[in-house]
Amino acid sequence: MATKIGILGYGNLGRGAEAAVKQNDDMELVGVFTRRDPSQLTIATPGVPVRSADDLLSGDPLDIDVLVICGGSATDLPEMTPKYAARYNVIDSFDTHARIPEHFQNVDQAATQAGKVAIISAGWDPGLFSLNRLMGNCFIPQGKDYTFWGKGVSQGHSDAVRRIDGVIDARQYTIPVESALESVRNGENPDLSTRQKHTRQVFVVAEEGADRDAITQAIVTMPNYFDEYDSTVEFISQEEMDRDHSGLPHGGFVLRSGELASGTKALIEYSLKLESNPDFTSSVLLAYARAVARLNAEGQSGCKTVFDIAPAYLSAHDGAYLRSHFL
Amino acid sequence: MATKIGILGYGNLGRGAEAAVKQNDDMELVGVFTRRDPSQLTIATPGVPVRSADDLLSGDPLDIDVLVICGGSATDLPEMTPKYAARYNVIDSFDTHARIPEHFQNVDQAATQAGKVAIISAGWDPGLFSLNRLMGNCFIPQGKDYTFWGKGVSQGHSDAVRRIDGVIDARQYTIPVESALESVRNGENPDLSTRQKHTRQVFVVAEEGADRDAITQAIVTMPNYFDEYDSTVEFISQEEMDRDHSGLPHGGFVLRSGELASGTKALIEYSLKLESNPDFTSSVLLAYARAVARLNAEGQSGCKTVFDIAPAYLSAHDGAYLRSHFL
Repeated sequence: MATKIGILGYGNLGRGAEAAVKQNDDMELVGVFTRRDPSQLTIATPGVPVRSADDLLSGDPLDIDVLVICGGSATDLPEMTPKYAARYNVIDSFDTHARIPEHFQNVDQAATQAGKVAIISAGWDPGLFSLNRLMGNCFIPQGKDYTFWGKGVSQGHSDAVRRIDGVIDARQYTIPVESALESVRNGENPDLSTRQKHTRQVFVVAEEGADRDAITQAIVTMPNYFDEYDSTVEFISQEEMDRDHSGLPHGGFVLRSGELASGTKALIEYSLKLESNPDFTSSVLLAYARAVARLNAEGQSGCKTVFDIAPAYLSAHDGAYLRSHFL
Repeated sequence: MATKIGILGYGNLGRGAEAAVKQNDDMELVGVFTRRDPSQLTIATPGVPVRSADDLLSGDPLDIDVLVICGGSATDLPEMTPKYAARYNVIDSFDTHARIPEHFQNVDQAATQAGKVAIISAGWDPGLFSLNRLMGNCFIPQGKDYTFWGKGVSQGHSDAVRRIDGVIDARQYTIPVESALESVRNGENPDLSTRQKHTRQVFVVAEEGADRDAITQAIVTMPNYFDEYDSTVEFISQEEMDRDHSGLPHGGFVLRSGELASGTKALIEYSLKLESNPDFTSSVLLAYARAVARLNAEGQSGCKTVFDIAPAYLSAHDGAYLRSHFL
């Protein structure tokens, strides 16, 4: 019997999750839920109902095995995930690293009381990159961790630039410094400052007559976002922006480098190259949604993270198949 | 209380496991067991008893939380692991891929009856590479898998060369073909033959007056081992062999490349660069030994593989620590 998936929120991530259901034969999309007016929303899958998010909370719980919550981490998920975990098995991609312990506790309390399973912070960072940081530390106990992001679009940084006076549109790429990455790969275990690890490349569409020097200065000196980085700013037309920068590529590298007890060096590198950050994130969410459904079917409850999920739970295949095909 | 580790077998892997215990503060080495005469074996750790492997099976079971079985896959482990799993929690690095299902069944039966936990085929391939093959397939359901090994020493191939008439010593390196790896990294999803993925480099110390052309021919045409590869053979002195080729470096790459349901491409790459294959394998074994002890303490029994182990079980830290430091 197919796992019944509900999707809450229909932005980039929700659309990605909707598409991802098609590549997972053991899953079925039973509804898309929106906080907007459902009659105004057209989704890609024919025959799947679009309903108000309120329907999830009023009356009896709907027949959904896992609700994939596709909201923003800043304000949506801290409020939404505990609320829905009190009625449904849920999964989210909460990515505000510093607030994960608090979010975990809120969701755990709601899910445990309801006898439901929740997985928070699934995706690739937090998510797959976290797994590789953890496992790297277990296999190479004495060593150093490195995470590089990009080349990819940072939506938070793009948004920050768009708020500058005179800016119509902006796109910010985070780019790992190749020489730093090479030094880590060579086992040199360098100490790297923020500036030595990444550069930031910004494309800006400015209003006609805007002071481009002032915009550039506002960008490169922006506290937290840009001031600790070497940033380049390039002004382009809206046509160029739409033509060359409409995608949301991303990726990165997690490395663990150290010396084993016998004195020999070891290096683990994990990397992702993604044409679309939300498409891949939603594909990861779907695999972990499978684990949510199974764990709850086994009688478990409470909040989990990627650290708590045995990899076999991510696959539609049984143990014997996995051992003979993948081990 | 520290996890009590016993090591059975004191070759490269056993010595690596002994060293690895020192990098895991929550573990304690309580004995090294050998099938040789214990009085002839001196180990690196002062104060740890060296005992006969027979002591593990006679009388009451010894006070060992996990027995790390460091034997060969060809003949040792198929016989040893089930035998010791009937009395102890055990872990091995059984690596004959084709025989894993059979080995699993034998160990599972013994461990289940005894109420013990066993993990088989832990290490990096099978092991970490297997995890990445499995997870890659879950996150990129439509795509292609690639595994490249090296640059590293294949002991099986080195041994095969040593059996050739006139050969005193030999070392064989497996080397990934860089252009093939690049094609995969570029998302080209190539179909690669055996010959297109790896080359083999052989260093040989020949007897004085041996027919070097005949040795070279015997190597490059050797069925299964070399005939499907482009191999190079170089004759060196024993001094050069000892000086330049005494290590057992290895590593490799697992890639999963495909197209997500939305039509965007995604690529996952996992790689290892190891100065010593057995040192790293034993470090991985120790982390999974921690999981063995915990699962058994929770009341579980039976045979598991890396697919069945939630990553949190590999770490000495608790869930709250892992979430705040690694997620």
